[in-house]
Amino acid sequence: MPNNLTIAAASREIASGNLSPKTLLKACLDRIDALEDRIKAWAFLDREGAVAQAGRLEKELAGGTPRSPLHGIPIGIKDIMYVAGLPNTAGSSIRKDFIPEFDATLVSRLRKAGAVILGKTITTPFACFDPAETCNPWNIGHTPGGSSSGSAAAVASGMCLAAMGSQTGGSITRPAAFCGIVGLKPTLGRVSVHGVVPVSFNLDHPGPLARSVEDAAIILQVIAGHDPSDSLSLSDPPLRYLPEPLSRPPRIGLIKEYFYAHADDSMTSATENAMALLRTGGAEFVEVDLPKSFDSLHQSHRTIMVCEGAAYHDDLFRQHKKEYPPGLRSLVEEGLAASAVTYAKARRHQIDYKLDIQSAFQNVDILLTPATRTPALATLDSTGDPAFNSPWSYAGLPTVSLPVELTPSGLPAAIQLVGPPLSEAPLLSTAHWCEKILGWNESPDLH
Amino acid sequence: MPNNLTIAAASREIASGNLSPKTLLKACLDRIDALEDRIKAWAFLDREGAVAQAGRLEKELAGGTPRSPLHGIPIGIKDIMYVAGLPNTAGSSIRKDFIPEFDATLVSRLRKAGAVILGKTITTPFACFDPAETCNPWNIGHTPGGSSSGSAAAVASGMCLAAMGSQTGGSITRPAAFCGIVGLKPTLGRVSVHGVVPVSFNLDHPGPLARSVEDAAIILQVIAGHDPSDSLSLSDPPLRYLPEPLSRPPRIGLIKEYFYAHADDSMTSATENAMALLRTGGAEFVEVDLPKSFDSLHQSHRTIMVCEGAAYHDDLFRQHKKEYPPGLRSLVEEGLAASAVTYAKARRHQIDYKLDIQSAFQNVDILLTPATRTPALATLDSTGDPAFNSPWSYAGLPTVSLPVELTPSGLPAAIQLVGPPLSEAPLLSTAHWCEKILGWNESPDLH
Repeated sequence: MPNNLTIAAASREIASGNLSPKTLLKACLDRIDALEDRIKAWAFLDREGAVAQAGRLEKELAGGTPRSPLHGIPIGIKDIMYVAGLPNTAGSSIRKDFIPEFDATLVSRLRKAGAVILGKTITTPFACFDPAETCNPWNIGHTPGGSSSGSAAAVASGMCLAAMGSQTGGSITRPAAFCGIVGLKPTLGRVSVHGVVPVSFNLDHPGPLARSVEDAAIILQVIAGHDPSDSLSLSDPPLRYLPEPLSRPPRIGLIKEYFYAHADDSMTSATENAMALLRTGGAEFVEVDLPKSFDSLHQSHRTIMVCEGAAYHDDLFRQHKKEYPPGLRSLVEEGLAASAVTYAKARRHQIDYKLDIQSAFQNVDILLTPATRTPALATLDSTGDPAFNSPWSYAGLPTVSLPVELTPSGLPAAIQLVGPPLSEAPLLSTAHWCEKILGWNESPDLH
Repeated sequence: MPNNLTIAAASREIASGNLSPKTLLKACLDRIDALEDRIKAWAFLDREGAVAQAGRLEKELAGGTPRSPLHGIPIGIKDIMYVAGLPNTAGSSIRKDFIPEFDATLVSRLRKAGAVILGKTITTPFACFDPAETCNPWNIGHTPGGSSSGSAAAVASGMCLAAMGSQTGGSITRPAAFCGIVGLKPTLGRVSVHGVVPVSFNLDHPGPLARSVEDAAIILQVIAGHDPSDSLSLSDPPLRYLPEPLSRPPRIGLIKEYFYAHADDSMTSATENAMALLRTGGAEFVEVDLPKSFDSLHQSHRTIMVCEGAAYHDDLFRQHKKEYPPGLRSLVEEGLAASAVTYAKARRHQIDYKLDIQSAFQNVDILLTPATRTPALATLDSTGDPAFNSPWSYAGLPTVSLPVELTPSGLPAAIQLVGPPLSEAPLLSTAHWCEKILGWNESPDLH
């Protein structure tokens, strides 16, 4: 069915006239109708709006060429990102009646590129730790990860071809890994946060969840680039992100110490299997040490997140304390109690760590770690642990997570590739090279 | 005497062989010998080192061409910027024995470009508000401004051709304005702070104090550009900063409301006189409104400064409280008492203000204000008020201050030109155009 295609494949079909945007959308809507009761991926489905968009885009095709590879491609938007006219609850009853009047910059860029904005995908409340109701398509008793829970589940279950997520700790990589799809967390500031409900302005990264590295790159190509409405947006000139062939196999840094000590056996085994495959393709592995500043990173990451989170929630929290779920409540309370010096020292640590971690790339193109400590947990009461992802959110470095294999329990296991500062373009090329060798070709059995 | 030349003029003489680096240095050292007792500009004069540098640079010239327009030019370095092997007291007894082993990035770039590093210029303690002993060359009973007090006084009195300063509130613009020279505060992140003692990492801007716009641009050309050792350093590719002819007279935004209400008569009068001259050159003036967020800016600027300052001083303050002068002490104590949420909200305000202030540039090339509220105060007990400069430090926008005229009391009055984000290159061209029309040609009478 076309709803299971990659964006790259679907857009070729659309460009050649073999697939129409309306047909593709109908396949997605049918899939949603069949599975949404079980998966619970959507906070708001804009059925009518999407049909109208697909109709307009289809007409436009009759008279010319596609606007971009996203022309007619149905995409889900995490429910913290404004879509004009659609509710933006941020996963909370507090904001249930809020309907933004403008698109987040990334949404308006997707729209201009011809994407069909299908609706809002479920997020954990305010993109923090309290789980949402979404289930993992591989096993509905398991968490899909969070906070981009609905985005990951929707893409993995064939409801849309890709979806937007965001990461402050591990909220793109973890759900992508748990659901067996590709997650791309770009460089901090690469994708505008204008019109995105914040967790922490020094840590928030919007990025795509997709079915292939190429698809993630196609989306990044559209949403990346300076946004004058976001003063933390990078001012770098536009880059070309679509994967290109490598001139030589990659030299990959392996960080064992922290990651192997904290991963379960199924994750270390999946990582070793991935390495063995990549080695057959010619990849070279070098063990790489972490800088000293890594040791206090998780504490410092949490300090920044709770302090900036509390600054955003402050008034709202005083008015609606009872509607705050326990995880978010303790996060806000921790931030409200913190001193400015504690927070400023954490920020100073973050700035210094961004330099220190660069030493890890001295002799390698990218770093490789397991993407998560464990596969998706057998619970809907926790979205899992972001510990393997927050070091890269903290450093603002780009990452790509790639599914590797199914663990003995039938859940996906993934690796995480990390690039040096601002390196999305070469990182995506390397990830594309790895993806071909890993040959992941599984999808959840959902009938 | 060659010590009174601009860098541009001196470098032409050096390139053509009419002036030797050793002769130029000797003229500066003679001037220092004659005036330092009265002016007190130098924390440490590296007489021997400078003579050796000038000798080497002179030899090098015999066999080839100058390294840059800075080849053989004696420059002073604010005593918070590391020069390998020279004391770096940061204006405080606490650090009197500290001798860094490496050059700050900006110092090493100056050195590579052929500048003669003459020594360390006096700063207020830790570049904050408590006055240093430096006197204003125009009237030694008046403050030279701060915190780059020695840099401004040294350049204005002919002791060196330019000097490095830094600005967190108004520490480049104010001393430059009070001493009748040109001050350039670049975009935040344009000049590396690696090896510079911080006040506040979201507000600190190193930049040159010089005798002309062209000289300031010559220095910026050398010190600007990404520094991998400073993770807040801008990643933009190198730009060309040297002034170029304008294609049309500038359209200048005039901000009257706040600035005219807080400037004394001599400053508004100097500003009006400057405008009248610029109008004769064809400049157009448009009155521009400030965004609403300007209103709370000064409070928010102070919050960020005291919180980040306290984070740096924390341990040092506990150990050396008695050696802290009263201004710095109250600044640190205010920061130690602040909550994380107060600081995070101030940072959020800063981020939002950076966007809001861009509306002021919608119809104009630059903004113009008086550079300071008053000319140099008749006291050495205060370095004056940074209120007119901190809005631009806060926004991270580039500014150039230009002396306009002598007030009836015989002290310089200056205007401040402000450019939109990242606009040093066009701003310097516009400032150069203004400078020629203003025709400032005064120097203090020091015999």
